[in-house]
Amino acid sequence: MQLTVLGCHAATPRTLANPTSQTLDIRGHLFLIDCGEGTQVQLRKSKLKFSRIKHIFISHLHGDHFFGLPGLVSTFRLLGRENELHIYGPKGIKEAITMLLKLGDSWTNYPLYFHELTSKESIVVFEDDKIKVSTIPLNHRIYTNGFLFQEKEVDRKLNIEAVTAFGIDKCYYQKIKNGKDITLDNGNVVSNTKLTFDPPKPKSYAFCSDTVFEPSIVPIIKDVDVLYHEATFLDSEAELATKTKHSTAKQAAIIAKDANVGALVLGHYSTRYKSTDLFKQEAEEVFKPVFLGEDGKAFNF
Amino acid sequence: MQLTVLGCHAATPRTLANPTSQTLDIRGHLFLIDCGEGTQVQLRKSKLKFSRIKHIFISHLHGDHFFGLPGLVSTFRLLGRENELHIYGPKGIKEAITMLLKLGDSWTNYPLYFHELTSKESIVVFEDDKIKVSTIPLNHRIYTNGFLFQEKEVDRKLNIEAVTAFGIDKCYYQKIKNGKDITLDNGNVVSNTKLTFDPPKPKSYAFCSDTVFEPSIVPIIKDVDVLYHEATFLDSEAELATKTKHSTAKQAAIIAKDANVGALVLGHYSTRYKSTDLFKQEAEEVFKPVFLGEDGKAFNF
Repeated sequence: MQLTVLGCHAATPRTLANPTSQTLDIRGHLFLIDCGEGTQVQLRKSKLKFSRIKHIFISHLHGDHFFGLPGLVSTFRLLGRENELHIYGPKGIKEAITMLLKLGDSWTNYPLYFHELTSKESIVVFEDDKIKVSTIPLNHRIYTNGFLFQEKEVDRKLNIEAVTAFGIDKCYYQKIKNGKDITLDNGNVVSNTKLTFDPPKPKSYAFCSDTVFEPSIVPIIKDVDVLYHEATFLDSEAELATKTKHSTAKQAAIIAKDANVGALVLGHYSTRYKSTDLFKQEAEEVFKPVFLGEDGKAFNF
Repeated sequence: MQLTVLGCHAATPRTLANPTSQTLDIRGHLFLIDCGEGTQVQLRKSKLKFSRIKHIFISHLHGDHFFGLPGLVSTFRLLGRENELHIYGPKGIKEAITMLLKLGDSWTNYPLYFHELTSKESIVVFEDDKIKVSTIPLNHRIYTNGFLFQEKEVDRKLNIEAVTAFGIDKCYYQKIKNGKDITLDNGNVVSNTKLTFDPPKPKSYAFCSDTVFEPSIVPIIKDVDVLYHEATFLDSEAELATKTKHSTAKQAAIIAKDANVGALVLGHYSTRYKSTDLFKQEAEEVFKPVFLGEDGKAFNF
């Protein structure tokens, strides 16, 4: 599972501070999460293949989270895209994008599907045999969702040495991988644990931006491997955080601790702070490990 | 008169190729012309003051010419702008921008005025005591205007030595600067040419992008000091240029020559070409001087 932070700064793009966007490379999918202005340039810089993006998840309709989307949708057309593109985001996103395309008389020549969200409960928005993606209802100035990405259980790993030693025919391999015990020709039953190894534990990632300190998300993101949580402010600006419906580094860490996550990645820093070191320091007083999101930085979990 | 090319490449933003946007610093105004995605970052890089921008001219509603506008309009708000902002562009631009702001529940707290264009004739869109801005109807796949920026005549320059020698009272200075002759107390008339120097010649700049080869613009841009004309293709791709309603470097030069302009600046290069040198070479076979637009390059004329 690789998380690439394309941009993780609050508000507007600047020379060295890109607004929110990230990719999650998980089980062969390259999911794009949020798409602030300049995302396509950041994708190029990170050498991520545009054609691998088939699903885009937009948390909310503030400019710093989706003003890069119309350009990216247009670029896909210019690149000769043929594959479907699915966009998941708040109601209104379809009208906005289609209107911009209409004004330019530039319809996509690939199938473009919008999945508009209105639910205030956590719902599943995408699912296949490998991955499930659900919303995490957040609490911001406008309707906002985070997204929870969960790998599904995979087959148990075959212990080739063991199955060979027992002389088991290949036609039983899939059953064994599914966890079944095997009855040999002599009537003996071989327990599945003797024929397989545990598969890798399914990984999970939760993206939470933008939101005020919102403990109601804890049950939804319980035990995830990695939590990205916005930390627009430091605790010294906690009042401002509450007023603008953002979080502090400390509050992000409290959520991480209460949800028992594996690791916390911070981002969405306000530009009022010269350095992000204090964010890490403040969060680590509550929870560890904490990683600082940085534009262009890739994390392997 | 300073022209700063913020971006001059066709289609989509890439790591080192920004879509169309430029500023014209003329008689105290900083006009922004077109606003492709990433324009605000390019403005920062060029160290141009955001607060000086009061008028934005948008040629047409293809993404590479205006997808940076919603973000810029939002940034002005975050910067605490109080001054009016005027946006001139094709009909539909108001609905697009206001819809995006509405979706984010992020209205501007400064006065925002849209001047929507529909005329197929050249019309004056802005005028004050120093400058006149008119449209240049272009011929592209959708409704498109170029813009002509013309300085107005300024007062003649007072020849202080001469007016002092003639003993003329200061209260006549403005009349003299206006070009009037002066009758002295002894009845002698002093010709204005003896009391003044010629003022600097008013400068003019024409922005023409995007357009197919369109000789009907020649009378409108006749004798301008500087012409920026799109050159998406080289002459070897002339058919493709016509088909996509773009121009070649040669065609841009023919327009420059026929309009007797002072200098030609090229831009809007297709990314199919590795280098822009051939654009200059091709254009110079028809007209000189030719300058190559480059992202971030400032020209003083």
